[in-house]
Amino acid sequence: MSRSVKLAVIAGDGIGPEVVAEALKVLDAVTQSEPVDFDLTHFSLGATRFLDTGDVLTDEDLAAISAHDAILLGAVGGVPGDPRLKDANIERGLLLKLRFSLDHYVNLRPSVLFPGVPSPLGDPGEVDFVVVREGTEGPYVGNGGAIRQGTPQEVANEVSVNTAYGVERVVRYAFETARNRPRKRLTLVHKTNVLVFSGSLWQRLVTEVAVDYPDVAVDYLHVDAATIFLVTNPSRFDVIVTDNLFGDILTDLAAAISGGIGLAASGNINPDGRFPSMFEPVHGSAPDIAGRQLADPTAAILSVALLLDHLGLTDAAARVSAAVTADIVARSVDSNTGSAGSGPRSTSAVGDAIVTR
Amino acid sequence: MSRSVKLAVIAGDGIGPEVVAEALKVLDAVTQSEPVDFDLTHFSLGATRFLDTGDVLTDEDLAAISAHDAILLGAVGGVPGDPRLKDANIERGLLLKLRFSLDHYVNLRPSVLFPGVPSPLGDPGEVDFVVVREGTEGPYVGNGGAIRQGTPQEVANEVSVNTAYGVERVVRYAFETARNRPRKRLTLVHKTNVLVFSGSLWQRLVTEVAVDYPDVAVDYLHVDAATIFLVTNPSRFDVIVTDNLFGDILTDLAAAISGGIGLAASGNINPDGRFPSMFEPVHGSAPDIAGRQLADPTAAILSVALLLDHLGLTDAAARVSAAVTADIVARSVDSNTGSAGSGPRSTSAVGDAIVTR
Ligand SMILES: CC(C)[C@H](C(=O)O)[C@@H](O)C(=O)O
Ligand SMILES: CC(C)[C@H](C(=O)O)[C@@H](O)C(=O)O
Repeated sequence: MSRSVKLAVIAGDGIGPEVVAEALKVLDAVTQSEPVDFDLTHFSLGATRFLDTGDVLTDEDLAAISAHDAILLGAVGGVPGDPRLKDANIERGLLLKLRFSLDHYVNLRPSVLFPGVPSPLGDPGEVDFVVVREGTEGPYVGNGGAIRQGTPQEVANEVSVNTAYGVERVVRYAFETARNRPRKRLTLVHKTNVLVFSGSLWQRLVTEVAVDYPDVAVDYLHVDAATIFLVTNPSRFDVIVTDNLFGDILTDLAAAISGGIGLAASGNINPDGRFPSMFEPVHGSAPDIAGRQLADPTAAILSVALLLDHLGLTDAAARVSAAVTADIVARSVDSNTGSAGSGPRSTSAVGDAIVTR
Repeated sequence: MSRSVKLAVIAGDGIGPEVVAEALKVLDAVTQSEPVDFDLTHFSLGATRFLDTGDVLTDEDLAAISAHDAILLGAVGGVPGDPRLKDANIERGLLLKLRFSLDHYVNLRPSVLFPGVPSPLGDPGEVDFVVVREGTEGPYVGNGGAIRQGTPQEVANEVSVNTAYGVERVVRYAFETARNRPRKRLTLVHKTNVLVFSGSLWQRLVTEVAVDYPDVAVDYLHVDAATIFLVTNPSRFDVIVTDNLFGDILTDLAAAISGGIGLAASGNINPDGRFPSMFEPVHGSAPDIAGRQLADPTAAILSVALLLDHLGLTDAAARVSAAVTADIVARSVDSNTGSAGSGPRSTSAVGDAIVTR
């Protein structure tokens, strides 16, 4: 008897629908042979929906999405500077609202430099690390305010909120992740010399949890120093655990050095399983190239691999990763030999190629 | 009649005294022909002083330093993890205390990739930009706290404080800087989609001040996207204006891509002239290589160029920069041709070479 997985699909705006279409193609192909059925519900959410209806994410949307087993998201966000979106803040009202409401306390972002993929670093050696970014605390909590707004006396504050409960669980997840990787190495990234209160909380919990993981080697870097190592010696990293904002910054840099955000996948995970986890490419909606089959669907397809892994379908996940790797290697061979067909492929051609493999 | 400049010198810890010695050599040489006398007072501050006396920075120290016209700082900080320094926090108690007490609201950090200097980016094209980092606000204000410390119920907060007064003045300085550069381009870096209150304050003041600078082209990047551009297209940047924490992160990355923190100089500037400005290399005290003449004094010497510029001695500043550039070019020629003397030079040999030029 085959298991049924209820998947909420939020294709979103811009290139979102194009890359999601390819991701679903791959999902369908790879699970043909698996004892699992995906039961898809499409949700129309994002800037387009907002412009149509004025809604960003209603309580009904949220309840309906919550009733699913997992979520696949393309990208959300309208054309930058569109005056009709001025007060919408789709990012906060939709993306962050989902992450917070569904308690996605682990934001998992692997960085792998696939063979043959060009990096701005030239040949930086092996790059294969994963950032475990906290997803429900820190400066992202929306705990800010301003007085005397619009005047020369304005004061605007933002509060970073960090709890032992919230830090401990993500740190533990990061140690588990490190334990299951060959190098078993964890780096805490923070700014403990300046953010002394949140910094000592993170430092304390890493030290405490480390006792349960004697097989994992731990070190620490300030966030500023971490950016230096990411460009001078990315091979030194295995698992990075860090707060929401530092994680945001480091993962874009990490994506840039390992082939660009066209290849960067992410999982917003609720490890408890109380809420559906959400898988999405790190890239945005790129309205400037939308609708023209120019987007690379690889990040969305790799997000499917993370989704399959999360569902315990590790074999299918591995097949998706292998197909992507093979496709990426073929791209670089094509472009090196200048053989026919080496021109840029359409979004769906990349999807088809990966399906075939 | 020659003008007298009272210079407070804080050589500090680790490699600080070595690089400051070379910086002072260069200062002395370049001002021989100028109608200016430097009157030096050496202050013993840093981890060494703390271990000797238990003081980080006394009120008397601060008053004495304030009575100077400018400050040259090497580097402060003891051996990481030294248990005797556990409660000292030299960074907060000394470096940040000076920046805040002396109202160093501009933290100026130029990034130039000198000809022939290797970059982890290979050949990224021309890199010549300056980060104007706010120095007295943001998450650096020390406005944090924790409850139930050390327990599973701990909550640790950090407040980023941003004022129209504080943002406007640094933004105005950044526009002035942009106006005086050939490309006249300013990029605001923030995270307005998440930090909505501080973000809209920054955005508002950049928009308002821009009215007075119609000759300066303005754009905006989220901090995560800015890290991507720094590694994929650093030439796009001319002047970056940003908050204290984002500036900290971006300037380390900027230093890494433009030859390393061995070359990165900075000025902590009080443009009002009410307090002495402070010039320092971006690098730290590097206790692991201290006392062995292994440190590159170039960043400290370039900090002298910033100091001279600040004092209006633009001609002398230009001569220091030119000598450094010539020395750096010579290094790369030496190492390319493998000619004799191409081995690494001692700290003082680099200083001497720059003095000679
Ligand atoms: C769109 C934005 C709110 C989001 C974030 O800051 O988390 C994005 O940058 C990301 O990294 O997923
Ligand atoms: C030492 C530390 C407090 C300091 C900072 O964060 O500003 C340093 O990283 C710098 O950039 O000058």
